[in-house]
Order: sequence, then C-alpha cells, then structure tokens
Amino acid sequence: MLLLRRCHSLTRFGPLNTQRHQVTPAVVSCAVRLWSSSSEDGGSYQRAHGPSWRHGLAGLLAGTGAVLAYGLHHHKAEQQDSSTVQTIEKTSAFPIISQEEVTTHRSLEHGIWVTFKGGVYDITKFVAMHPGGDKILLAAGGALEPFWALYAVHNQEHVLEMLSEYKVGELSAEDVKKQKAIKTSDPYSTDPERHPALHINNLKPFNAEPPPELLSDSFITPSAIFFKRNHLPVPQVDAASYQLHIEGLPGGVLTLSLEELKTRFPKHTITATLQCAGNRRSEMNKVKQVKGLNWGIAAISNATWGGARLRDVLLAAGYSPDVAQRAFHVQFEGLDKDVTGTTYGASIPLNKAVNEEGDVLLAYEMNGQDIPPDHGYPVRAVVPGTVGARNVKWLGKIIVSAEESSSHWQQNDYKGFSPGTDWDTVDFKSAPAIQELPIQSAITVPTDGAVVDRSSEEVTVKGYAWSGGGREVVRVDVSLDGGKTWQVAQMRSSEKGQAPGPSPPPGRAWAWKLWEVTAPLPAEAQELEIVCKAVDNSYNMQPDTVPPIWNLRGVLSNAWHRVKVEIREDDNEI
Amino acid sequence: MLLLRRCHSLTRFGPLNTQRHQVTPAVVSCAVRLWSSSSEDGGSYQRAHGPSWRHGLAGLLAGTGAVLAYGLHHHKAEQQDSSTVQTIEKTSAFPIISQEEVTTHRSLEHGIWVTFKGGVYDITKFVAMHPGGDKILLAAGGALEPFWALYAVHNQEHVLEMLSEYKVGELSAEDVKKQKAIKTSDPYSTDPERHPALHINNLKPFNAEPPPELLSDSFITPSAIFFKRNHLPVPQVDAASYQLHIEGLPGGVLTLSLEELKTRFPKHTITATLQCAGNRRSEMNKVKQVKGLNWGIAAISNATWGGARLRDVLLAAGYSPDVAQRAFHVQFEGLDKDVTGTTYGASIPLNKAVNEEGDVLLAYEMNGQDIPPDHGYPVRAVVPGTVGARNVKWLGKIIVSAEESSSHWQQNDYKGFSPGTDWDTVDFKSAPAIQELPIQSAITVPTDGAVVDRSSEEVTVKGYAWSGGGREVVRVDVSLDGGKTWQVAQMRSSEKGQAPGPSPPPGRAWAWKLWEVTAPLPAEAQELEIVCKAVDNSYNMQPDTVPPIWNLRGVLSNAWHRVKVEIREDDNEI
Repeated sequence: MLLLRRCHSLTRFGPLNTQRHQVTPAVVSCAVRLWSSSSEDGGSYQRAHGPSWRHGLAGLLAGTGAVLAYGLHHHKAEQQDSSTVQTIEKTSAFPIISQEEVTTHRSLEHGIWVTFKGGVYDITKFVAMHPGGDKILLAAGGALEPFWALYAVHNQEHVLEMLSEYKVGELSAEDVKKQKAIKTSDPYSTDPERHPALHINNLKPFNAEPPPELLSDSFITPSAIFFKRNHLPVPQVDAASYQLHIEGLPGGVLTLSLEELKTRFPKHTITATLQCAGNRRSEMNKVKQVKGLNWGIAAISNATWGGARLRDVLLAAGYSPDVAQRAFHVQFEGLDKDVTGTTYGASIPLNKAVNEEGDVLLAYEMNGQDIPPDHGYPVRAVVPGTVGARNVKWLGKIIVSAEESSSHWQQNDYKGFSPGTDWDTVDFKSAPAIQELPIQSAITVPTDGAVVDRSSEEVTVKGYAWSGGGREVVRVDVSLDGGKTWQVAQMRSSEKGQAPGPSPPPGRAWAWKLWEVTAPLPAEAQELEIVCKAVDNSYNMQPDTVPPIWNLRGVLSNAWHRVKVEIREDDNEI
Repeated sequence: MLLLRRCHSLTRFGPLNTQRHQVTPAVVSCAVRLWSSSSEDGGSYQRAHGPSWRHGLAGLLAGTGAVLAYGLHHHKAEQQDSSTVQTIEKTSAFPIISQEEVTTHRSLEHGIWVTFKGGVYDITKFVAMHPGGDKILLAAGGALEPFWALYAVHNQEHVLEMLSEYKVGELSAEDVKKQKAIKTSDPYSTDPERHPALHINNLKPFNAEPPPELLSDSFITPSAIFFKRNHLPVPQVDAASYQLHIEGLPGGVLTLSLEELKTRFPKHTITATLQCAGNRRSEMNKVKQVKGLNWGIAAISNATWGGARLRDVLLAAGYSPDVAQRAFHVQFEGLDKDVTGTTYGASIPLNKAVNEEGDVLLAYEMNGQDIPPDHGYPVRAVVPGTVGARNVKWLGKIIVSAEESSSHWQQNDYKGFSPGTDWDTVDFKSAPAIQELPIQSAITVPTDGAVVDRSSEEVTVKGYAWSGGGREVVRVDVSLDGGKTWQVAQMRSSEKGQAPGPSPPPGRAWAWKLWEVTAPLPAEAQELEIVCKAVDNSYNMQPDTVPPIWNLRGVLSNAWHRVKVEIREDDNEI
C-alpha cells in the first residue's frame, strides 16, 4: 500500500502570508491609476465603464480587497467583525468635532473625512492609495462601519494602524450616541453556516474551496463542500414571495413564482461541473503577483442540477427565432446587492440560452435537494460548459438584449490578457468576456510535498479533468518525471467504479472526469515530479507552463499541474 | 524597411531529400509489420481493422508514400498556362540554353535564371528590386508563366520591357516542347496541372502546400495555391452525368444531379479555413520519426465556398428530428478510388450536419468559380471548423447512419495519442476520430534562417491563426526572445486592410485571421527566436513545446511556432 504523509497540507497557504507585503505596491499603483482616471475622466477604465461605475467599484473592491486578504484564513478563528474590533484608543490630544462638521468634508476639494468608532479621520491623502479604489468615497463625511461590515477584509490590525495615522479629532459624544442609535448591522450576519473542511480564501464575501483529496473522492461533489464563490452577502430570499422576471421579449415582462417555475415547465436534470475562472490562480501568483483570490486547485466541483430549461422559459415568454435578429445576449441579474444597491450580473450568448443542446437550466435543485443558500437558493442559472461567473445565483431577472450585461464582472473582469499586459496598459474592451473555459486538469492526490515510502513500491495518482463548451475529456497523460515520459490515466465519468460511461452527445459533455494512475516507483528516483495534462475531443491540450499564460487577473490558469513527492527509503524510517 | 534575405529558401527541401533515405527503412518495416499482421491475423492493427484492410493499405500508401517525393516541386516549373501576355520577340543573337542549364541557376551564388515564353533570363540583379520581394525566387530555375498567372499585375507592357533587359538566351526547342505536359498511362496521368509555387510533399497522390510567405499575402487563398491533400488519383467526373446519392433516411435514397443540387436548394456562401491534421508534422519529425507526409506550416488555407446546405438536402431527403434517436453520424463517400475500388470515406457527427449553425455545405464553388479538380469538382463537403479529412472531395454518396464511417481514415488514422503510445501499443479504438481541430498559429514571415540587417531597425513578423469548432481567434502573442516576453499582434479577418472585422456569431468563426507585428530590433541581440501563440474565444492556447504532444501519426502539431532569425550588423555588409 502507498503511504502518503502530507507534511505540508496544513501549511499550504503559509508562503502566501509572506507575499502579502510584496503585494502592497502593486495594489497602490493600481489604486492611483484608477483614481486618476476617475477624476480626470480620461482613463480607459472610466470610459469603458460609463454609467455603471457602481458595478465597477463594487467589483473592484470585491476583487482587489482580496489581495490584502491573502493568508487570512489562518486567522479566521481570530477574525472578528466590525462590532467586536477593538476601538482605537482615544487620546485627549485631538479636538472634538461635530458630525455636522464632518459632513462638510466629502470632496477632494474640501477634504475627505470619515468617522470610525468615535474618531474622526482626514483620509484625503489616502484615497488614492485605497486598494478598493474610490469606492471609499461612498463613506465620505460619514461612518466607515457599514462599509467595513460589507468588506470584512478591513478587520485587520494593520488597517486600523493605517487609519490611525490620519486621525484629526474625536467625534462629539452627542454624535457618537446618535451613530450608535443607527443600526449598522453586518450584512453578512445572515450568511449560512459552512462546512469546516472548506479552505476559506475570503470570509466576507464568502469564498472557499474543498481540500483537493476530498474533491476526487466522489464524482458528484457533496453540496456542503462544493466550492463557494460569492461576490456579495448571501441574500435572504423568501421562496413563497420569490419572483423571477423575464424581460426583453415580444410578450412583455413575464413574472414567475417559484411554484410556477416548477410546475409550468418540465424539470430537466443535468450533471455539470462548475469552475471559477480563478481556479489555480495561486500558481500564477507564484510567477508574478496577480489580483484576485488565491485559489488552489479546487475552485471546481461537480453536481447534479434540476430545474426548468431556460429555453422553455424564454419560449413561454415570447421568444421566437426572429428575436435573434436583434438580440444576442441573455443577461442575468442576481438578488445579491452591495450597499449601493448594485446587484451581481452577467450575461451569456443568446444562442447558448435558446439552443436545444445548450442545456441551460434555471435550477432549483442541487444534488436532489433545494439549492442551498450559498449556491443560489431558490433559483440559479446553470450554464454548463461556461465559467462559473455566468452561472448567476439568487436569480432575480433575465433580460434578452442586444447588449452584454453592463456589469463590472462582464465588462471589466473575467477576461484574459497577454502576459505582457499590465494594469497600466490593459484595455478591457480588447478581450472577450470569458464564456467557455479551456481544457483543465489537476492532481488531487498526492499533494505537493507528500512523502512516499519506498516500500510501497508504487504510487497512485488521482485527479480531475474537464473542458468547457461541452468538449469531452478524451485522455489524461500523467508523468512521474516532470514531463519526460507519459502514461495514460484510467478515467471514470460516473459514480460507478472505474469503467468509463458512454460518451455524451457531441458538445454536451458537461461533467468532469475523475482519473487515476497507479505506477511503480522508479527504482533510482528520490523525488517524483508528477505532472498531468488533459486532452479534450477537440484535441485541445493544456499549455506546458504558467508564465506564458500569466495574466494580470490570474484567470484561466490551466497549465500542466505539477506536484513534487519525496520518496523516503525504508531505512530512514523511525 | 526590413530587408530579408532568405538564403536558404531554395534549399529548404534539401535536408529532406537526405532524410528520404533514413525514412525508407521505417516505411518498409511498417509495411512488413502490417503485412505480417494481415497474414498472421495476430496484430492489433488487423484486429481493430477487420474486413476493411484495403482501406488500411490505401491509407498507408497515401501517407508514407509521400516521403519519397520530396524535392520534386522544382520540376513542376515546366508547367505552363495559356497566358495572355505577349510573347517576347526572339532574336538569333542569343545562345540556345537547355532547361538543364537553367535549372542550375537557382541561387544568388549561381545566379537566378528564369524562362518565359521560350526566353531565358538572368534576373539575379533584379531580385533586390522586385516590388514583390524575394518571392520572385520561387520561380528560380523554372518558368515565370504560372506565377504571373497568379499575380496578374505582371501582365503589363513595362514589366515585359524590364524583363527583356535581362535576357541571356533562348530555351532549346526540345525543352520548350517538353514543357508541354507529358502524358503517361498511370492512374495519376489525368491529374490536373498544378501551380509550380507549391511545395510538393507527394506527387502521387498529390500533396502540396504553398510557400508560407504567399499564404499570408491574401486573406482568401487563391485556389491555385490552396494546399492540396489528395489520398488517391483525382477522379474524372462528368458534371452532366454526376449524381449524388443520399441514403439512410425515411424517404429512401435521394439522388440529385448537379443541376438539381444547384437549383433545388438555396445557395449559401461561407468563408472557411481548411487545415490538414498533419499540418506542421515536420516539427514532430524533428523530435522523433512519425508516419506521414512531412508537411511544413502551410497545410492550411482559406477560401470562400458556395453550395447547398447539407441540412437542407438532408431535410429534403426525409430527415426529421426523430431520426436523431437512431442515427448519430453522416458518412461521406468520395468518387476517388484506389486500385481495389475502395473509395475515400469519412464521417461527421449528425448534429454538426443538421444544426442550423453547423454551416456544412455541399459546395460546388470555390472562390466564386467551379471547384477545381484538385479540390473536389464538381461537389465536395465543406465542414467548417472540422479537420480537412472530413471535408470529403468528389462527393458521391451521403449516408445517415448509426455508425461512423468504417473507412481507414475514420477508424485507423486521423486520431491523436499520448507521446508514450507507439505502433506496438496503439489501440485505434481508444481515441476519437479527429473532428474539430485545436487552436493553431504559425509564423509565415520571416522564414527560419532569414537574415535581418541591423540597419533596418525593426522586424515585421506575419502569420496566420485559426481554431476549430468555430472558435474565434481573439489574440495572438508574439515573442522575439524565445517566449520570455510577449507582445500582442494586430489581426485582420478580411481582405480589407488591417482593421478587424466584426466578430462572427459565437461558434461560427470559420475563417482564419492573419496577423502582423512590427517591433524594434532588440539592441544587443544577434539572433531572434521569434515565437507565436494564439488564443481562441474559449481561451484555449497552444502548448509550449512539441515533445509532449508528439504522437505516432504526427497529427495535431500545434505547439508554439518558432523561427530563428540572424541579425547581421551593417559592418558585415559587402
């Protein structure tokens, strides 16, 4: 038997802690650029962004805020939300300032003042350095607490230390009392309980992935450990009063209750893998810092989804082929909102939505049960073969449109760029929004740094493989010597043992395949560099290395996956 | 301006000639193996292959026989066409020169001689002045007529006047006579005349590709230099008696004449790139010997095709959606036959054939004219986004079936395998027939080994990029330093200058994009390793290197393309 000792599995995120400080300059420079483009209205970001700047800011904050959060999950136990963060110690050296006075400082011209826990801060000079961009201006003249409650990344000591440098006064006792009277409840306080096995990449909004070795244990990922990627607080949706609005079709607006969605349309079931665009971003981070959550290899999972076909609902709402002459996209709006009321949004091509073989669902079931709150209760879009970001959760509105979603996440995020493109040169309009994802695979067992006993004589390697656009994985090659020689893995495409199932119809292979190889330990080797690469039925293959596919957002990280394993001789055994 | 001297262009096939002798044993050994497996009925090849062994031998011959034909292309220069250009007046002042003598003048070192209408011209000194650059060298040692026929700009009086200044002799009467085609009785004797610019990889059956630098000259490849990949002799088809049979549908057999195909169904036109599965095979051969024609980078071309939609014809023949419950493939049979009477055959998935967005044509026009004999006159299948091998030429029969084509080319060829799979272990049943091809790109200018003058200060790199399955190429990255740093190329997707056209509908980007980068020469570099890699809108990228995608048939060769260019310092100039 193979004995694997996973020495580093518990410190897997350790090195990232040390990276945190290297990150700051890049973040600051980005913030400066953003600020200048917003204020001068001359930057491409601002131009590209137009009227929906709120989306942009929300997304940026959700995205870039994360940079500061690397490695935070170790402190998760210590993590506190705003209500319990220690108050900065007051000193009598500061003047007393009224809320009325604070309120007059809401512009760069008159200065940007904010309050926090009874202190008054002039953050005018900090605005340009704020990693979350000028969203900080939303708090100008008022209290920080409600915003920090939304983006819990701020709840760290060094953030408080930074803030203390800008202190200019104490808020009058009377105004402090008034502030307390106003509810500043934590918008994440109603987020659901989560499974403790999850590796948390960000707590608020919640982003977490399962341990890789659990992932490859089951063809269908249990919902509790299915990777979770929220952009905003989980909305509290009452199923009884839930309404789904379908707009942009000749029949006018169609509104459906959950009951109507379930009863008016046949229920379809598909097994589909969802993957975050940022899956395996941590490997890009090792090449050069990128902006985004530091996902490992498990921002991907596979579930069975049940629901109405989007095609059927669109037909009921008045869709006919001539609509396709003027409309090219189907936009989704979530019910999850930021403090400004901006909802999460994304869109998919109309032909994916209406094609009989597109298999897009308005899903109300996940793995045979109501969709859990973290995955979009009561209804989410499931767009098989398409990047997770377009599988909009807590679905509130569907709009058939000539245009893509104007949301930040469609326009200015989730796009791929050349390794030579940086935040100073990037033009988000130059790249298409990610829809179908490229061929992907990774090794779940053994983990990097594991130790194999020589006496075990062989090593078993396991992993997953998947490709976007319904392209079926047809082969996984595994190497034990860093890619010099290769063997073909056994694959399975169901829960039923190792036998491969029959191929799905062409272009409709929505589910991953799990794979496995058991091979003799090479006689002389003291270390194995295990590598995997997958091939889909368009014979697309994974690129060899990370640097040539590196991009500033760290998306689409699909190079060969590599883990190093030490072979320990028996006589080294204790 | 960049001055490129392609010192080696004329000897490009030289090394391959020397390889020929190395190749022969491999071919023999393979044939022996095949034979023994046929006779002993013990080989896996035979088992997989069963009753259709004739296909196997035919395919093998078509594939490996090619290796023997390297370098023949120079003799093609004897082909002539009936140009409208006036004959230059002969004078007796010039010596009589044999074709043999002309043929020895094919380099700057030995002089560049060409023939035109019986005259012999030494154009060595003109080469540097040629407005079309060193493409003129393609005619070196042979006749100008076929090239001038392709580029009608030459058909002007002043061009003839210029040429007359370089006259050095008269071609011998005997050689003038020989230039007129020699008829033989072999099955290829009725093969059409071909353009002498083509690099011939195999003469019988005819397999040839254009020079790369011509390929990127025009968005639409002229039919004369469109790559040609025949598996058998070109059949002589009489358009008046031509019949297309459609079988396997409830309505029984439908038979259509060419006239009926043209008049009963609306004519559709698409621009689609076709690529041979073996394009760029020569790069795999450099890693380890593979079996197949040694294609360079130009077994790919782009044309406009006109014809009836296969969908429309199948509907007329009785196709309805319930047929899809029992039939999954559409088989094509060509009218080209081997000596045993076996026809070329292949199949495509039924959903590609009947989908409104599949755009499969029964084409009778290529670039606005009747399809030329080499490309399938009078009717061929054009299956856009799909490997060339399924675009069956000289189409005789269409069969809607539960099974794929049983032909050698569908079952035991045109499939991809792991680099670790060899001829002893290969199981052709284990891999799917290639249909959609993966992302591809290559550098057409400069060619490998070109020399750039330091004084030119910059280098212009050109190439093509394409992906299968209708996936649009969204970016091409170019590196001058072997892949360390990258810049983004300008792309064009039409004949109209450099501006990119609007994107085609999702999944229907059938045509390639041509791309170009002009970059400063790096100050210190003495050599450039130019690399390109493309990205499609599923964000699939080309793999970095050849060895990990090497496979025994040398198909699917789509690693980054690399060319080395020498930078010559000015003081080295003569």
